[in-house]
Amino acid sequence: MTLKTVSSVLPLGFKASGLSAGIKRSGKPDLALFFSESPCVASAMMTANAFKAAPLVVSAQHLAASKTRALIANSGNANCMTGRKGLRDAREMTASVARQLALKKEEVLVASTGIIGKPLATDKIKAAVPGLVSSLSVKGFPSAAKAVMTTDTFAKTASLQAVIGGKTVTVCGVCKGAGMIAPRMKMATMLAFCFTDALIEKAALKDALACAVDDSFNAVTIDNCMSTNDMVVLMANGRAGNRMIKKGSPEAVRFSRLLRQVCICLAKMIVEDAEGATKFIEVRISGTATKPQAKDLAFGVANSNLFKCAMFGSDPNWGRIAAALGATDSRLKQEDLRIKLNGVYVFNNGRPVAVKDRGLLKGRNIVVDVAVGRGKSGATVYTSDLSYGYVRINADYN
Amino acid sequence: MTLKTVSSVLPLGFKASGLSAGIKRSGKPDLALFFSESPCVASAMMTANAFKAAPLVVSAQHLAASKTRALIANSGNANCMTGRKGLRDAREMTASVARQLALKKEEVLVASTGIIGKPLATDKIKAAVPGLVSSLSVKGFPSAAKAVMTTDTFAKTASLQAVIGGKTVTVCGVCKGAGMIAPRMKMATMLAFCFTDALIEKAALKDALACAVDDSFNAVTIDNCMSTNDMVVLMANGRAGNRMIKKGSPEAVRFSRLLRQVCICLAKMIVEDAEGATKFIEVRISGTATKPQAKDLAFGVANSNLFKCAMFGSDPNWGRIAAALGATDSRLKQEDLRIKLNGVYVFNNGRPVAVKDRGLLKGRNIVVDVAVGRGKSGATVYTSDLSYGYVRINADYN
Repeated sequence: MTLKTVSSVLPLGFKASGLSAGIKRSGKPDLALFFSESPCVASAMMTANAFKAAPLVVSAQHLAASKTRALIANSGNANCMTGRKGLRDAREMTASVARQLALKKEEVLVASTGIIGKPLATDKIKAAVPGLVSSLSVKGFPSAAKAVMTTDTFAKTASLQAVIGGKTVTVCGVCKGAGMIAPRMKMATMLAFCFTDALIEKAALKDALACAVDDSFNAVTIDNCMSTNDMVVLMANGRAGNRMIKKGSPEAVRFSRLLRQVCICLAKMIVEDAEGATKFIEVRISGTATKPQAKDLAFGVANSNLFKCAMFGSDPNWGRIAAALGATDSRLKQEDLRIKLNGVYVFNNGRPVAVKDRGLLKGRNIVVDVAVGRGKSGATVYTSDLSYGYVRINADYN
Repeated sequence: MTLKTVSSVLPLGFKASGLSAGIKRSGKPDLALFFSESPCVASAMMTANAFKAAPLVVSAQHLAASKTRALIANSGNANCMTGRKGLRDAREMTASVARQLALKKEEVLVASTGIIGKPLATDKIKAAVPGLVSSLSVKGFPSAAKAVMTTDTFAKTASLQAVIGGKTVTVCGVCKGAGMIAPRMKMATMLAFCFTDALIEKAALKDALACAVDDSFNAVTIDNCMSTNDMVVLMANGRAGNRMIKKGSPEAVRFSRLLRQVCICLAKMIVEDAEGATKFIEVRISGTATKPQAKDLAFGVANSNLFKCAMFGSDPNWGRIAAALGATDSRLKQEDLRIKLNGVYVFNNGRPVAVKDRGLLKGRNIVVDVAVGRGKSGATVYTSDLSYGYVRINADYN
């Protein structure tokens, strides 16, 4: 399948906008709207955290009740642990958009990101909604992407096209990351919104999303802290005019690959822009019996603070990789283990290999290859280092 | 029961020594010996890590084969992931001590701590053993304690006495901590050596150790990184002349309490001296159905990097506590949750409580109280903050 990269193009029939509603003290953009001219089949995956934020509760109800037309998202405040007021506020956000766009409130989804436990300034949001609606545009995607940023240093979008079912289908996505990023299987780990003009059955859409998330948003970790607000949404409005993509069909496989690529692209941007990151680290595990086993081991390494500090210091201290692997799976055998750092063996044949190149890990990109000799499966996880910057950003976020 | 604090006194019949064998490049003390004039019943708990260091393998064999007379420990090198040479080196360390003290090598235990994956300079150790043996002394405990330090900034010892079975019984302990500290249930998490002159059955000794470790070394976490070298050893030589402490007896309960206090004292010192620590944090969970559930929640908070960074910044960002709790147990209910920081409610009755005191967390000691409203059990876990210092120490440890 040939994938075509397109720069931040919204699929047919979608519009977006972003502006500053005054939620952030800095005055930076903090309110985004995504809108489809026609009804969408939609699917979402949400955090496994017990304390799900109010917008997630409301969005789940709306997804169950109706087709979807729009999504409103704010940064600067998570609207989480805010009790009944929080739920009312999230509903008012959707109602406010629905009024302006002549939709039912159930056709509107809502997402929030930012600090936990502060009441939302809903009046400011309601006051900003008319302007947000009137500035909706096919070129509004970059503005909307900016408005969901928190500690992100750049906006994160990706668009890809492919011919599926006789027509060019576009998938585009936007996400926000930077901190409180940890995956839980089958769950999303930040905010990501994907839009497509593909004509697709809801069941096929749901499958494609689960598969894409597994290899992308659920394959990254920054700090092993699971957010209360994480959500991935996928909306499909069918405007590409392709033959209907049915569950289990070859077209469904093609669509799934297209979506997966967009999501991997976005997930890698999250790691690239992780709080304080000076390194982009790929942890590849091979030789496990199953893929989940490989992912567990990869996360074991990727979430080790000692490993992450060593990477910050460009220190090829592979003993910390071994310690993290051994802590994750007590059945591993020393004699079966092989570890490569940026392509150079540091442990092989049950013995350490002396590292001669002192500058081996000096660059920004680090690849850790681990083979454990227990089977034929594998997995890759992306992470960043643990730096002074991470501590600084999070020591006084409030 | 009245416990009497005594300053670093070895129990009757024990001697210790410590010196520099040249394993550490700095020339600081790095070799310690502990010796009992008469045979000891002994028990040990070891890390659950798959890549157990060679000294642990050898010590487990020796414990199974014989009563115990001595323990040799080095810092500066973990002798882990060092293949067959590592096992040979660990055995030579015990043999070398055995020769000098006219013991069987099975009567000698061995422990190592330091960097993983480097071959041990066994020649230096063997050359130092005669001096180590000749300097054994009833006053050598502080020297031995210094010799097991790695990134520790102070030596960690504790001694307590109580009357048990008609006689004064002494328990003393030494440990090393600072980094790669994470507990796994029923396992130790650093190096800790405890000695007692109590006369006690092996079964009672084993029970007392498991109980003491659960509330002490298994109730601390610095960085959630499980070491390959962790071991707790308890040696009892019976020289106090008390009536034999039998499993399940009131005397066993008294001994267990005495040991538990020594271990809690040592465990807290590990947290006090954690790598880069600027805060000593106590996370207390109440209202769970079982103690393990409470411990899980406490560790969920204590291991959250975002929580630890907020504590470093004295920032009462309780949203991160809630997020960590919710990530640990998805069944928690917002309306049942109460959170206090240093005695002040920040979340109560399902709602945030505004914190008025801006200096609430400015001091070194922080207590987090969480009630989850699901039962009558609870647990306490001790941890430190995540600071620039932690990153600095671990960025180039090699």
